Amino acid sequence: MDYKKESLKRHLKFGGKIEIKSKFPPLKSRDDLSVAYTPGVAEVSRLLASDNSKAFSHSIKGNTIAIVSDGSAVLGLGNIGPYGALPVMEGKALLFKEFGNVDAYPIVLSTQDTEEIIKTVKAIAPTFGGINLEDISSPRCFEIEERLIKELDIPVFHDDQHGTAIVVLAALINSLKLVKKKKENIKVVICGAGAAGMATTKLLVKYGIKNIILVDSKAIVSKNRTDLNKEKIKMLKITNPKNIAGDLGEALKGADVFIGVSAPNILKPEFVKLMANKPIIFAMANPVPEIMPDIAKRAGAYIVGTGRSDFSNQINNVLAFPGLFRGVLDNKIKVITDEIKIAVAETLAGFLKKSELNVNKILPSVLDKRVSKTIARKIADFKVK
Amino acid sequence: MDYKKESLKRHLKFGGKIEIKSKFPPLKSRDDLSVAYTPGVAEVSRLLASDNSKAFSHSIKGNTIAIVSDGSAVLGLGNIGPYGALPVMEGKALLFKEFGNVDAYPIVLSTQDTEEIIKTVKAIAPTFGGINLEDISSPRCFEIEERLIKELDIPVFHDDQHGTAIVVLAALINSLKLVKKKKENIKVVICGAGAAGMATTKLLVKYGIKNIILVDSKAIVSKNRTDLNKEKIKMLKITNPKNIAGDLGEALKGADVFIGVSAPNILKPEFVKLMANKPIIFAMANPVPEIMPDIAKRAGAYIVGTGRSDFSNQINNVLAFPGLFRGVLDNKIKVITDEIKIAVAETLAGFLKKSELNVNKILPSVLDKRVSKTIARKIADFKVK
Repeated sequence: MDYKKESLKRHLKFGGKIEIKSKFPPLKSRDDLSVAYTPGVAEVSRLLASDNSKAFSHSIKGNTIAIVSDGSAVLGLGNIGPYGALPVMEGKALLFKEFGNVDAYPIVLSTQDTEEIIKTVKAIAPTFGGINLEDISSPRCFEIEERLIKELDIPVFHDDQHGTAIVVLAALINSLKLVKKKKENIKVVICGAGAAGMATTKLLVKYGIKNIILVDSKAIVSKNRTDLNKEKIKMLKITNPKNIAGDLGEALKGADVFIGVSAPNILKPEFVKLMANKPIIFAMANPVPEIMPDIAKRAGAYIVGTGRSDFSNQINNVLAFPGLFRGVLDNKIKVITDEIKIAVAETLAGFLKKSELNVNKILPSVLDKRVSKTIARKIADFKVK
Repeated sequence: MDYKKESLKRHLKFGGKIEIKSKFPPLKSRDDLSVAYTPGVAEVSRLLASDNSKAFSHSIKGNTIAIVSDGSAVLGLGNIGPYGALPVMEGKALLFKEFGNVDAYPIVLSTQDTEEIIKTVKAIAPTFGGINLEDISSPRCFEIEERLIKELDIPVFHDDQHGTAIVVLAALINSLKLVKKKKENIKVVICGAGAAGMATTKLLVKYGIKNIILVDSKAIVSKNRTDLNKEKIKMLKITNPKNIAGDLGEALKGADVFIGVSAPNILKPEFVKLMANKPIIFAMANPVPEIMPDIAKRAGAYIVGTGRSDFSNQINNVLAFPGLFRGVLDNKIKVITDEIKIAVAETLAGFLKKSELNVNKILPSVLDKRVSKTIARKIADFKVK
């Protein structure tokens, strides 16, 4: 199937991907109108005005999140603005509904100013029970998320960061079982220091991995560098314990794991040969990965995962975000902590029994709708009593 | 049926009134995912990024509007804030969908600052093909609407103003047929100088009514007053040609029409007796009208309409806004002009044949779904070629 052609055709035919549907009985009589709208609705309004928390039970708020994007870092397309972002956010809304029964609404913004984005999201927040930030470029995404988490009383989650980090961690947990290595002993190279790379680094450290080398588009992030931004300087504290300097090849010497969230084709086969035994390669640049799986395998890779659905081991955020938000909404979680993220990763990894695991199946299928239910149930452990 | 009790019960049972539904085939295979989401969607994103106008055909934008409220003037409840407003906006979304097949999404705001509201609506506008402002108090609503019409390239419509004005004009057109009076010769008293009263005054003047007396909560709006705000001072130019001063009773002497968009029970029976022959009374305060229909009739009223569904002659915005936005979206109208509003009022009035008209039936039923289709078709006349 020609996905591009079919996608254009279908978007035109249906006029986008989502619509509004009533949850109430059809409006056929004056009574129906009087219950759904005036005068009956006034009683619901009075209740919600006097006790705002009732919005979670008596309005859409309890099952509704906004998918907010400024279109500054969309897929592999870069800064294509809000209109280019809209079909992607609609797609995300479909995934939220189909896999998590979460009503997610795309809000694409005409501004890319950090303060204006923060103000806008705060202004529209009353409708929503959560905010999923999407495709906002780094480093602005860090401040926007951090501030909104602080200033709002509903959960805020930048999926490009944490969704990726969670699914990568799940893939890593299962891969380590297959290669029989321990998290405390491995060396991990994370290539790409944007939103996904940073968040993955932080979560893997939190999970207990001690030796992570972060590499950006120029070189290893080390104390020798004088060109690092604020966010990368923070990373020096938790990565690169021996302060190695140099290029990606240097970083990969003896590494057990390569995690790529960077650019097409930058992992050369000769680099793979520098790695430790049974190399684990997650090459997630989209749509063209850091190395094609067949090339990686020929160079000695033991496990290869990508973001793509046409290769085995698809490492895709859709395995996490629908179940995560389902659980967060069900349990009225206000902040999605690192503990929750790690629990979601462990639940996702544990979804496959040890007997089901193999080098071509380190994660469940993205189409398996039981995954999100299992994740959502796990999150009940974090409900504030 | 106890509407209050049933409404509370149903809102809790369903968790509000609307949900998201997919317009695409279900996501059952990797192909489905690849067309709805990556990689196929990237082609749609590229198209919309290079030609933003394609968002109207290839994304939800073409059939989607925002219902924006700050909760400052909700129903008869006043300034109850965004959470109190949310169930009302959800109700409006239901009406938009059921009567106009328009996908309308409730956006309730945590701010009531004019500039912040304007900035927020502009920031979120890329998702939407139109903006319906709702339940924003006067006089802020005038500036907010005016500025957004100027600064956005999609239609912006404050329904409390213009929806009311349109339906009142339609009711008046048909009432005049029944009493056999001409618009040029009648005296109309409009009681209430908020959003609805102001907009109704302006539209009736535009339609050709020459003698309108506007009355606010204190007295007739006349040149003798020293306490008028900017908006009311503007009204002096188009109302009260003989500069009558005094109270509502004074205004009503010899009046042919009373239009109330004000407060419960303020039209006393003795005032009705001061009016010209065959008095027309539209008492639209909600839920308790300016005068109850039976009292008005006993005092000599010939035609009585209210906003309520339990009396005959319901004068309700739902007769206008779904068809209006259906037509505006279908014909890519960027500004909803007075000419369009008058055409919608005339179409709504003309929906009933002369033989169908009587003092208890001046407008079609709010449940008649053919009304919005007829209005939408009429708006094609205003399509920019």
